[in-house]
Amino acid sequence: MQITVSTRGFTDVIDISAEVRRACESREVSDGVAHLFVVGSTAALSTIEYEPGAIEDLKDALERVAPMDADYKHNEAWHDGNGYAHVRAALMKPSLSIPIVGGRLLLGTWQQIILIDFDNRPRTRTIHVQVTRGVGS
Amino acid sequence: MQITVSTRGFTDVIDISAEVRRACESREVSDGVAHLFVVGSTAALSTIEYEPGAIEDLKDALERVAPMDADYKHNEAWHDGNGYAHVRAALMKPSLSIPIVGGRLLLGTWQQIILIDFDNRPRTRTIHVQVTRGVGS
Amino acid sequence: MQITVSTRGFTDVIDISAEVRRACESREVSDGVAHLFVVGSTAALSTIEYEPGAIEDLKDALERVAPMDADYKHNEAWHDGNGYAHVRAALMKPSLSIPIVGGRLLLGTWQQIILIDFDNRPRTRTIHVQVTRGVGS
Repeated sequence: MQITVSTRGFTDVIDISAEVRRACESREVSDGVAHLFVVGSTAALSTIEYEPGAIEDLKDALERVAPMDADYKHNEAWHDGNGYAHVRAALMKPSLSIPIVGGRLLLGTWQQIILIDFDNRPRTRTIHVQVTRGVGS
Repeated sequence: MQITVSTRGFTDVIDISAEVRRACESREVSDGVAHLFVVGSTAALSTIEYEPGAIEDLKDALERVAPMDADYKHNEAWHDGNGYAHVRAALMKPSLSIPIVGGRLLLGTWQQIILIDFDNRPRTRTIHVQVTRGVGS
Repeated sequence: MQITVSTRGFTDVIDISAEVRRACESREVSDGVAHLFVVGSTAALSTIEYEPGAIEDLKDALERVAPMDADYKHNEAWHDGNGYAHVRAALMKPSLSIPIVGGRLLLGTWQQIILIDFDNRPRTRTIHVQVTRGVGS
């Protein structure tokens, strides 16, 4: 299964919980795991309390680690200006696994699944959702 | 299956290897994967050599990335003072998958599984453990 | 299944995509997930566009987060000088899961699987590859 999301890039943080939930719950698996993976080297997946403050705070921390306007050797070679995006994506990684318990995706009440698109232009992103069955309780 | 852990918060780093091992090995799966997930948006899972020095060093690095006393927009909106915790948890992520080989959880000798509770108060944390079967060797 | 890789240490970044692909595709699983795990507490797995510039940029960011020559309490206790390596590995984590779709490992064109060896000496690393079957589409 796959989910397609349009982004604005530039560390755009998008709540994909509803789409993931729909994809997983259509599988009618009682106990298992939903494995998510975003294709490409300038995006990542994680969870966060999805509210504007926390999202801005996450962006501020990523600016400390890999500032958008620092000197990147990737940019010198490729001139596409998205060196910061490659670094952020490699640090945050493209995969995330979430348990399915009693037929439902298990998340905290204030814990949403996010796609982060670091690239420096709008993109259409594909997230693969693979469900595996757990060993019964 | 789930594991429940009491924490002191404030980037409390707790070795949960024994509990995870017990939960997984009770499943009598010869070859598979243990998928761990901590519920909530202010905690994370990883592995480390569990000794006091390395744990302090990890906390120091997280202070560089998301200092406890920086200005957080989350705090301005919600006044709960745990903005740093949301950022650290989103960066480190709530899921971790560990292979089961020959009926045993596969970890290095000096590699322990850790729950990190970033929140700014003691919490009781739930970690879900879902075991899936591998395709036979 | 396991993959063995010789590294030079010191945040050596190695493209292991071909070895992982070979290991996974030998399983003849049409739809599933490849779960990778590097044993040890001074290495990690991720993906990146594997070109020299992006790799140097990733190393530069890790220097900001956990500089090689900072003071580490791990080093004070153990005198092995690899405190930075333990911190980097705990932050980047040892596990990564990649979907298998239509019998093929699913990665972006410019997205390679990397082993990062942070330790301060050459090492031989073992990466475990466990394949699990997905719930059919």
